[in-house]
Amino acid sequence: MINSEGLRGQTVGQTAISTVKTTGAGLAYRGYDITDLANKAQFEEVAFLLLKGMLPNTGELAAFNSRLQANRGLPAALRTVLELIPASAHPMDVLRTGCSMLGNLETEARFSEQQDAAERILALLPAIICYWYRYAHDGVRIDTALDDDSIGGHFLHMLRGEAPPELDVKVMNCSLILYAEHEFNASTFAARVCASTLTDLHSAITTAIGTLRGPLHGGANEAAMAMIAQWNSPDEAEQALLNMLSRKEKVMGFGHAVYIKQDPRNAIIKSWAKKLSEAAGDRLLYPISERVETVMAREKKLFANADFYHASAYHFMGIPTKLFTPIFVLSRVTGWAAHIMEQRAHNRIIRPNAEYTGPAPRAWLPLSKR
Amino acid sequence: MINSEGLRGQTVGQTAISTVKTTGAGLAYRGYDITDLANKAQFEEVAFLLLKGMLPNTGELAAFNSRLQANRGLPAALRTVLELIPASAHPMDVLRTGCSMLGNLETEARFSEQQDAAERILALLPAIICYWYRYAHDGVRIDTALDDDSIGGHFLHMLRGEAPPELDVKVMNCSLILYAEHEFNASTFAARVCASTLTDLHSAITTAIGTLRGPLHGGANEAAMAMIAQWNSPDEAEQALLNMLSRKEKVMGFGHAVYIKQDPRNAIIKSWAKKLSEAAGDRLLYPISERVETVMAREKKLFANADFYHASAYHFMGIPTKLFTPIFVLSRVTGWAAHIMEQRAHNRIIRPNAEYTGPAPRAWLPLSKR
Repeated sequence: MINSEGLRGQTVGQTAISTVKTTGAGLAYRGYDITDLANKAQFEEVAFLLLKGMLPNTGELAAFNSRLQANRGLPAALRTVLELIPASAHPMDVLRTGCSMLGNLETEARFSEQQDAAERILALLPAIICYWYRYAHDGVRIDTALDDDSIGGHFLHMLRGEAPPELDVKVMNCSLILYAEHEFNASTFAARVCASTLTDLHSAITTAIGTLRGPLHGGANEAAMAMIAQWNSPDEAEQALLNMLSRKEKVMGFGHAVYIKQDPRNAIIKSWAKKLSEAAGDRLLYPISERVETVMAREKKLFANADFYHASAYHFMGIPTKLFTPIFVLSRVTGWAAHIMEQRAHNRIIRPNAEYTGPAPRAWLPLSKR
Repeated sequence: MINSEGLRGQTVGQTAISTVKTTGAGLAYRGYDITDLANKAQFEEVAFLLLKGMLPNTGELAAFNSRLQANRGLPAALRTVLELIPASAHPMDVLRTGCSMLGNLETEARFSEQQDAAERILALLPAIICYWYRYAHDGVRIDTALDDDSIGGHFLHMLRGEAPPELDVKVMNCSLILYAEHEFNASTFAARVCASTLTDLHSAITTAIGTLRGPLHGGANEAAMAMIAQWNSPDEAEQALLNMLSRKEKVMGFGHAVYIKQDPRNAIIKSWAKKLSEAAGDRLLYPISERVETVMAREKKLFANADFYHASAYHFMGIPTKLFTPIFVLSRVTGWAAHIMEQRAHNRIIRPNAEYTGPAPRAWLPLSKR
């Protein structure tokens, strides 16, 4: 008997890392509600919570931040690899390759190194994507070993070549928290299947990056950006959207595979998008986004998910659209690493069965008879 | 309700590519028994069968072989990346990184390119591993665009720097057929989860390589080699093995997650290992291997699986032990690619659920209170 397609609704394992849809606002990391985390925490506290299982105290957080800052320098061989990747490459391919190359240079030789390896990857992924982006697009070899206080600030600093304003750092902090963890989504599950053979951390994170790359998983905020950027007023947006709906086209950034009534992350990022819009003097993208949200609720009873207002929020911060999904990686790597460590701690190799639907047994046919 | 651990015995999808344990010798690719394939086919015919769904006729096979041969040249940027990887790296990390880098240079932009992309990867993986191996270990920059008739011959030619003898080419051909495909094993399932987000082929193959890297999946033939190489006679082997068993140590190369009574691939590779042993004038490794097989059957009722006699067979051909698992990749890439294409053709994103076992909902605790 085959399970439901895509394993939808099937419970395939246990986790202590997050809950989706069962308590409070609908998403909690290790028992802490996503709204509390997004409003009150630093992303680095959340990363610590996911990786080590508890919130850090003041000393632990300071030490964690120091280690992350000390881990921002790219090995020379990795810099050379990034310089060999053309500007036309898919940015997720760059992150996937950067993480994989790092595994050659700093191999996780035994599981006792997993926390160090995870911290190194967490600290280095922003450097990998920004070093490649700035070199391939601007011809600049940036120094990635900067002393910004936060991962979000470090990313914006490298991308822009100057320290970012406080508002932008706060939005990045919130965004990284919102995307950090989401139970057995496809990239996390792929990472766990990979990890179940007791392979190294770099292989499992590389797997997750390549899985998030798919348009059915990451990429929704990029698609939402491409959509709202083409319209010049809320009225034009409404008319165009209605036309899209009448042609049964898919509108990215709405609905969710797991949430039914709302995505608890939407209200949070929406309020930041509004603040950024006001700071930028925007009279277009945010009003268009709100209209799209209204029309989708009215016409399709679909809610905006975490991705939709991320599009305009990132855009107001001057982030190129093709780097939206890579930011997802900079955040979700914390959840991935936590799941990989959890899989290792209670492992059995994940080896399901298939129902065969192919040809019946048949006799060999020599080449001359075909 | 949670499914069985590791999804063991759970049917999670359909496939028309292979059957395990249900017909004939116990393994069939698209209806053709593994014994027929291993004794009568060229690996390139099997690769065609897996990738395109049917055995090629004479013209199709000639055209397929021509394309594979034309695809053996490494892009300059990929050569440079391979030269940056130290000799101490894990060879599976080299293949994972080589495949990932290729995705930057020759991105599969749409699914209509999938057959071309799969053929390119199939043709290039032997070049990736041999170029790195010879450069890192011998300081030689080899030309990979050679005109050997077969993939197995091409691999041995690059590795040794001279055309291999006919017997070795035949054994490689058989070995590549035996390892080509095995239903929903962990690396194939990981590749399907990855592919279910509709990501590119390079991401999904990269995932599979990283998954096969784990010691619970690939690597059994390397472990078997390390074991038999340490003994100097069958009697010494028997005594040492009995000691291992009394200490409840795991003996690699025996038993199987799916097969119960025998592995249909064992007898086939065993007969080739015997021929190679005779040709090499060996009086040690093959007799030791036979003794180990006898003792394991007598003491543990465990049969040798496909990996066990691969160890001595590869060794007799002068292949360094650390390249055993990479050869598995050169073969299994055909099954992986076939499964990725099958997943794409009937896709739903693979997104299971988890049972939560973590902390109950809890209130936020400010940093100063921790």
